[in-house]
Amino acid sequence: ASAAKPAEPPKQPNLSYGDRAKLISNPAASRLLEIMEQKKTNVCVAADVTTVPELLKIAEDLGADICLLKTHVDILTDFDAETIPKLTAIAEKHNFLLFEDRKFADIGNTVQHQYRDGVYHISSWSHITNAHVVPGPGIIQGLKEVGLPLGRGLLILAEMSSKGNLATGDYTSKAIQMAKDNKDFVVGFISMGQLSALAQDPTFVYMTPGVNLSSTGDALGQQYNTPESVIFERKSDVIIVGRGVYTAADPKAEVKRYREAGWAAYEKRLSN
Amino acid sequence: ASAAKPAEPPKQPNLSYGDRAKLISNPAASRLLEIMEQKKTNVCVAADVTTVPELLKIAEDLGADICLLKTHVDILTDFDAETIPKLTAIAEKHNFLLFEDRKFADIGNTVQHQYRDGVYHISSWSHITNAHVVPGPGIIQGLKEVGLPLGRGLLILAEMSSKGNLATGDYTSKAIQMAKDNKDFVVGFISMGQLSALAQDPTFVYMTPGVNLSSTGDALGQQYNTPESVIFERKSDVIIVGRGVYTAADPKAEVKRYREAGWAAYEKRLSN
Repeated sequence: ASAAKPAEPPKQPNLSYGDRAKLISNPAASRLLEIMEQKKTNVCVAADVTTVPELLKIAEDLGADICLLKTHVDILTDFDAETIPKLTAIAEKHNFLLFEDRKFADIGNTVQHQYRDGVYHISSWSHITNAHVVPGPGIIQGLKEVGLPLGRGLLILAEMSSKGNLATGDYTSKAIQMAKDNKDFVVGFISMGQLSALAQDPTFVYMTPGVNLSSTGDALGQQYNTPESVIFERKSDVIIVGRGVYTAADPKAEVKRYREAGWAAYEKRLSN
Repeated sequence: ASAAKPAEPPKQPNLSYGDRAKLISNPAASRLLEIMEQKKTNVCVAADVTTVPELLKIAEDLGADICLLKTHVDILTDFDAETIPKLTAIAEKHNFLLFEDRKFADIGNTVQHQYRDGVYHISSWSHITNAHVVPGPGIIQGLKEVGLPLGRGLLILAEMSSKGNLATGDYTSKAIQMAKDNKDFVVGFISMGQLSALAQDPTFVYMTPGVNLSSTGDALGQQYNTPESVIFERKSDVIIVGRGVYTAADPKAEVKRYREAGWAAYEKRLSN
């Protein structure tokens, strides 16, 4: 007679975004997957613009087609106290979440201030943010003390899309371990796809930057991928699209192309 | 008959800060070493405070004893358009430079905006800033295009003082290589001491955080060192002192303790 083996968790590729939402306790990640299921979109638009009117126009024009808006509020030259209330109102109207792509990268004591204080008060409005793990586990602990009581979620940068980046091998393995040690707050990864070391754990969300249907790179080392390769082949969950959408002649039409390509790749994966 | 060997550059420990200033073409780094020689101080104070009055008080009260003020302008809740002109005036009065500890950590296209734009316009006032190399060489290229024409300098985070950090081994080696490939703009390192792989190259400046005469760490993974161990034993150039000074009962007296300890360690190294 052998002891019963513990039941294995269901594999991620066999579960829908909606099914996975039910397995996740973190409110930000669970809500994100619900929105993806409901709106049928896995597109996150990266709004890398330098003025508030441009940012709000992207949010308003593309909001109906996205699950998440990735911001860099620290490049907005005209940021003021009205910016976040306006952005939040648009996010609520179109039912998408906000992801300040801050890439925190300092020791725990400093990132707590950067997350909570300053002129941006990121933790007060950004449902999801992200961090590098090069400073060690103290960065996650510091951010968690601020963000977890607010129901926020953190993505760990496990891999990057830029040429010659160092988020590889042992660095990626240690990033995964730090995430596993903080599953209440770390909701997933910035990575090039699903991380095989996590054995298809359905409770982590993967987001992949550098997605572009037309271009293959820029002059400063960025390297691009397609929605099909990211969602179907590499089994990521969210495609992050920046210049490919907002510099297009018709951004509203262009975001729908990415939405359709990303959703088709997801349905192909589910039925595979 | 043997071919003449190329002359070896003079070793760093045998040269004074002032001698090394003459070997460096980058204006920010050269001026920093001149100030250190002239004021007889290798102390950088880290002003990790969250209000502008606190920051300006530290700059005014401690300015005469430091070569560099390390700032986190993004944790100042009351930052406004007057903050930088006021800070710059104090820096000029007391003859120290400014180092915004931004720890840039994104792809080249994004860090250019973060360095030049936003509400902080860091490149317009911060003589020295720093970056992680995890995104690959594009981050240095992006920052250099903005900072070099302004005479700014960049420090690369080659090592960190926090517990369990990943800036070790091959990561550190690659950071050093990226610095060597960009010597016009990369003026040195954040590290725990001189980096042996650079064979005592006198044209790189080393700055070491986590220096404290009284405490050995904090609750979020920070680990502390003494001025003697950092400057004499590990041959760093600048000690970065934060909470050890500005939370002391008498910060003005306390900064002089660090200044004397740091300078004594430097003179001991020179005469060794």
